[in-house]
Amino acid sequence: MVDILHRVGITASRDAVYRALTTPEGLAAWWTSDTRGDGAPGGVLEFRFEPGGFDMKVLEAQPAERVLWEVIDGPEEWIGTQISWDLRTEGDFTIVMFGHQGWREPVEFMHHCSTKWATFLMSLKSLLETGTGAPAPYDVKISDWH
Amino acid sequence: MVDILHRVGITASRDAVYRALTTPEGLAAWWTSDTRGDGAPGGVLEFRFEPGGFDMKVLEAQPAERVLWEVIDGPEEWIGTQISWDLRTEGDFTIVMFGHQGWREPVEFMHHCSTKWATFLMSLKSLLETGTGAPAPYDVKISDWH
Repeated sequence: MVDILHRVGITASRDAVYRALTTPEGLAAWWTSDTRGDGAPGGVLEFRFEPGGFDMKVLEAQPAERVLWEVIDGPEEWIGTQISWDLRTEGDFTIVMFGHQGWREPVEFMHHCSTKWATFLMSLKSLLETGTGAPAPYDVKISDWH
Repeated sequence: MVDILHRVGITASRDAVYRALTTPEGLAAWWTSDTRGDGAPGGVLEFRFEPGGFDMKVLEAQPAERVLWEVIDGPEEWIGTQISWDLRTEGDFTIVMFGHQGWREPVEFMHHCSTKWATFLMSLKSLLETGTGAPAPYDVKISDWH
């Protein structure tokens, strides 16, 4: 099993980062404009992009600390994988430790998703620091796979 | 052992991407302005950043196809790790498959480096597509660790 791991620091409160990870409005402002659902534990969040989308079951949502999703629908390689967000404060920064874990193989699509997650984390950072993110369909295109 | 994996597509020739990965001038235009050394097999490339740097031994450099470096000096976690670049053509794109492999543990610094590599890959893409990259010290700051 192989993991996608990232770390970003955001000059915003942990509460603000947490809201951007647990409310459809917040998620729509940095990941994909077409986001619906319920970000509370037990809820399901539906993220849609031009080529398809992902449904996530919210396994954990501890205010200002941790969010954990499990992918219950979407591309085959994603199903059953888990996406974790751990927040802590370091000086003026909220440090976001991100993991997309449980990939069965380091397929080419995983390489793509690793780079793409980094650009979406920068979108999250931008949203919280400047008020403007770059959610799909306004996201940074990184390749022929978008 | 854990790996950092990324994939980007660049609308430039494989020869142009290869030059940006094997010449000090090319590397200085997207990774760090302070780059010296020899990008040919057996050569050593010295990359310097404000907080320190990396020395890489060039293990492979197959024109327009593959570059492989081994880290011979730098932060302890990097020493002995290998950085690979595999190029192929797909339609109008040169696809870059990137790996930074052989990390002993998924330490927090590895999470940081994963995100940071993604932003430098976007710098490489930008350099080749627009003529302007964002090498250190003009690189995208992603956190308190820069």
